[in-house]
Amino acid sequence: MRDRLLRTALLFCAVAGLGQQPAPSNVRGGEYPKILPDRRVVFRVNAPCAGSVSVAGRAEDSGMNGNKPHAMTRGEGGVWTVTTDPVRPGFHYYELIIDSLHCNDPASESFFGWGQETSGLEVPDESLDFYDSRDVPHGEVRFRWYRSTVTGTVRRACIYTPPDYERDTARRYPVLYLQHGAGESERAWTSQGRANFILDNLIAAGKAEPMILVMENGYAIKAGAEPEPGSRGNEAFGNLVTEDLIPMIDAEYRTAADRDHRAIAGLSMGAGQALRTGLGRLDLFSCVAAFSGGGRGFDPKRSFNGAFANPDSVNRRIRLLWIGCGTEDRGYAPAKAFHEALTACGIRHVWFDGPGSHEWQVWRKHLHDLASRLFRKS
Amino acid sequence: MRDRLLRTALLFCAVAGLGQQPAPSNVRGGEYPKILPDRRVVFRVNAPCAGSVSVAGRAEDSGMNGNKPHAMTRGEGGVWTVTTDPVRPGFHYYELIIDSLHCNDPASESFFGWGQETSGLEVPDESLDFYDSRDVPHGEVRFRWYRSTVTGTVRRACIYTPPDYERDTARRYPVLYLQHGAGESERAWTSQGRANFILDNLIAAGKAEPMILVMENGYAIKAGAEPEPGSRGNEAFGNLVTEDLIPMIDAEYRTAADRDHRAIAGLSMGAGQALRTGLGRLDLFSCVAAFSGGGRGFDPKRSFNGAFANPDSVNRRIRLLWIGCGTEDRGYAPAKAFHEALTACGIRHVWFDGPGSHEWQVWRKHLHDLASRLFRKS
Repeated sequence: MRDRLLRTALLFCAVAGLGQQPAPSNVRGGEYPKILPDRRVVFRVNAPCAGSVSVAGRAEDSGMNGNKPHAMTRGEGGVWTVTTDPVRPGFHYYELIIDSLHCNDPASESFFGWGQETSGLEVPDESLDFYDSRDVPHGEVRFRWYRSTVTGTVRRACIYTPPDYERDTARRYPVLYLQHGAGESERAWTSQGRANFILDNLIAAGKAEPMILVMENGYAIKAGAEPEPGSRGNEAFGNLVTEDLIPMIDAEYRTAADRDHRAIAGLSMGAGQALRTGLGRLDLFSCVAAFSGGGRGFDPKRSFNGAFANPDSVNRRIRLLWIGCGTEDRGYAPAKAFHEALTACGIRHVWFDGPGSHEWQVWRKHLHDLASRLFRKS
Repeated sequence: MRDRLLRTALLFCAVAGLGQQPAPSNVRGGEYPKILPDRRVVFRVNAPCAGSVSVAGRAEDSGMNGNKPHAMTRGEGGVWTVTTDPVRPGFHYYELIIDSLHCNDPASESFFGWGQETSGLEVPDESLDFYDSRDVPHGEVRFRWYRSTVTGTVRRACIYTPPDYERDTARRYPVLYLQHGAGESERAWTSQGRANFILDNLIAAGKAEPMILVMENGYAIKAGAEPEPGSRGNEAFGNLVTEDLIPMIDAEYRTAADRDHRAIAGLSMGAGQALRTGLGRLDLFSCVAAFSGGGRGFDPKRSFNGAFANPDSVNRRIRLLWIGCGTEDRGYAPAKAFHEALTACGIRHVWFDGPGSHEWQVWRKHLHDLASRLFRKS
């Protein structure tokens, strides 16, 4: 009976066009992709000369039914459409496949992922508003160019400053260094991740200390060096952070420039970078967080240059060690094993699991939880 | 003889791979599009299943030989390439055409233009460095979210703050409101236009007063209103600026908040917006600039609600009226007619013409000239 009522209500909404909405990730004024009340999504592409058109998520575990192509149907004038099954809330990279050619959807904003500008679908979660742009004071997202001595290039950092940063000019703020995943860039945490809105909302609710976020590009090669064979070209990232980025940030922003007020976190590739950089320099960082990665093959005595070899010392020096992973992530088992090995050694840490795969919706929740714990007066 | 030497030198460079460079607009690590020493450009696309592939500029007057498609040739493994004729220095929107489908080049960063994310080709001009990222102090490019009462939405402004803004905290700065063209967004002036580097370089050389740039999205419709039939959906832009944007900027930034320290400029669609908004509110603005647009059909007595009807009054009230247009721009004749009509009326203004069409390379030069004249102690 309840199901029947719900179905009737949804049918009514569909007929009336109620509850349908353009995806928030569409370009200005774009009607499609359109999200239906049950989270099915209507895609629409104008390709009069094409012989076949489909749309597909970019990852095997994407919320758009993995990366299985949804075949589109040709309509009048060569406009192709498809209505998908319900799509998981959150952010999903996707692509069009037109006569075997993989390309972007002109109807979507683009997001740097997979090493290129990529279409993205944002599906709202009606039960969550912690990452929405709400009517609260907003911080700024800033881009700053600086010269790196490590890479020998001018680089661009992305910096979130909290709402009252320009007003409360006597105040100094703690800093979270926050890294993206493979194939992404320094823009990812604010565009795909909505890190700025997550912090705005937490700060407005008094649930997080006002803090600065610093997001850099995780790809960094030493000046004059070639990338190591088979590497990601990110070998110099740790040096970049400690030798160039932190000094620049502490010189240019009103930071509380000590280890108690400095944390580092990252997702996937960035999780490994955060663990290696943070644990290798506990003189600079007191909090380290790994989102969906970084702990594979953990050996308490040897991993991270033996940083965990002496649990008592670790527990004294690290104010917060935070590890999380989505339960449907292919890396869940190694992440859980990392957590269990830490527990077995008596190393204090937060373990955060919950539904989701290797995706931004999980990392938004990770940041939300982490930020609420960082830099609190204990 | 000189030509022969030059040709030999270029041939030598080509054989040795000297002087070839990836376009600065490529995605991270991308080798193609590749710019040859004579500014021919090699495009390369992986499309094994395609029957035909070409690359084309997006505008009739694009520096890539207009929008004439350059047919690409299929090579081994379905990799298509073409070497174009020499391309004009500057920024050119472009697209791939694959079996009649118009799509982005995955090798290029994307730039919001033509109402969507669009590929862009940046061709360096060896004789100009005023818009390059040079070793000078850099300002910040900030994004700020704020609620507009005019549109009833949360909007995002893009703000450039000059290099010492965070250090020289007693100082107040003049503000230039700076608008993009049709189909673009608040990101255009800093990404396509390099406005931040232009200002950094001018300020470092002591050739411009340190100033704040404010760039908003020129599309704005009154809360609850439908776009007027056939309109661009930008009717409420002037109200947005005067009722929401200026008060927000003056409240949140250390501005010199009076007409003497406030200017407005824009390009193409934005030129019209700057003229209408600025001339309509000379109580708020003392300087108005129109880049490549806004003066078509000018009538000294009636245009802009009669703002120019009394030349003496105009000359007293406007500190700087600036008009420019590229000589190959389709709008050059009306722009020149506007300039000549102003001259005939005795209205003091700067007229800036020079080579170029309706393109960013021209607007970079426009901003460079305008910024060097604004807010100077006379």
